[in-house]
Amino acid sequence: MTRLILATRNAGKITELKAILVAAGLPYYLAGAEEFPDVPDVKETGVTFAENALLKARALATATGWPAVADDSGLCVDVLGGAPGIFSARWSGTHGDDTANLNLLLAQLADIAPPHRTAHFACAAALALPDGTEHVVEGRLDGTLRPTPAGTGGFGYDPILQPDGETRTCAELTADEKNAISHRGKAFRALVPVLRETLY
Amino acid sequence: MTRLILATRNAGKITELKAILVAAGLPYYLAGAEEFPDVPDVKETGVTFAENALLKARALATATGWPAVADDSGLCVDVLGGAPGIFSARWSGTHGDDTANLNLLLAQLADIAPPHRTAHFACAAALALPDGTEHVVEGRLDGTLRPTPAGTGGFGYDPILQPDGETRTCAELTADEKNAISHRGKAFRALVPVLRETLY
Repeated sequence: MTRLILATRNAGKITELKAILVAAGLPYYLAGAEEFPDVPDVKETGVTFAENALLKARALATATGWPAVADDSGLCVDVLGGAPGIFSARWSGTHGDDTANLNLLLAQLADIAPPHRTAHFACAAALALPDGTEHVVEGRLDGTLRPTPAGTGGFGYDPILQPDGETRTCAELTADEKNAISHRGKAFRALVPVLRETLY
Repeated sequence: MTRLILATRNAGKITELKAILVAAGLPYYLAGAEEFPDVPDVKETGVTFAENALLKARALATATGWPAVADDSGLCVDVLGGAPGIFSARWSGTHGDDTANLNLLLAQLADIAPPHRTAHFACAAALALPDGTEHVVEGRLDGTLRPTPAGTGGFGYDPILQPDGETRTCAELTADEKNAISHRGKAFRALVPVLRETLY
């Protein structure tokens, strides 16, 4: 069975990609990065989502000898010129503190009213093969930033992004609703034809 | 004597503009915003330096009946798409905490190495007259962000910006050296011909 490594320790991402692969009839054995504890985390020195996704996929493919998928994603705020962007997870200075990141962003934008609160989630999904073959695809979800958080689902900036055409924030959507429209869902689905062509 | 109000409570800015006006042979009486304690601070709701400078100058000119000058400035980091930009003074979420703002920015950029640490200071200087006449000019200072602060002069992000062609940060320059090349010095000097034409 084709084996594919997903460069994440996030169980939610693994479940999401697994569901997309099954729906596409690609019954790979999908492993998370935690199955390779000796492979160190790569430093995300790129300056685009695509570069960082490729860095992570390439490192894992090289270290394990298996095809590897990685994603890099974030929130791009128009009035901030696209920031936090690749810095989304460490916006408050500490990596992965969702609440601190979100609260800092709201404080920074306190004086900014619509129509200047537009933003989008962006995701790059990269596939790297041990032979050096590389592909990267992207997905995005456009919306508006709420002044205060709402909802308990999702993670990251989900409680403050209200997708265009929605009355709820991403954190108020069900997981299925979110995956159907999300940047990561779109990028992972865009990866399906690439995987089919590259791994079969 | 022509009276001109500078929309600031920062004595350093008043000294700087006064020196430029004297050097240009424009002996206006220059007053700071603190001489008009009843005029409330305007909310900086613009999304560009020019908009915010105009908002502040306009509010003061309208409230006092005198020509007013205001500046809005900040640090624009290329890899952040120009952020902090207009949000420079409240980057850490609290307005005017220079140390917190600077430390947050350094933490956000911790993994970013040259050549991706380029940045510039930008300043818009606006003149507003009680009759509705408005002008805005801009200045910038290009440089590179140091990984750690150096120098005790200046304020804001001065300790981490090293101007192109310099080996010192802005905070290691003398006040005269800094004013000669700074974004604010350039913008204030660009205002001189505007003032001469508008107020004489």
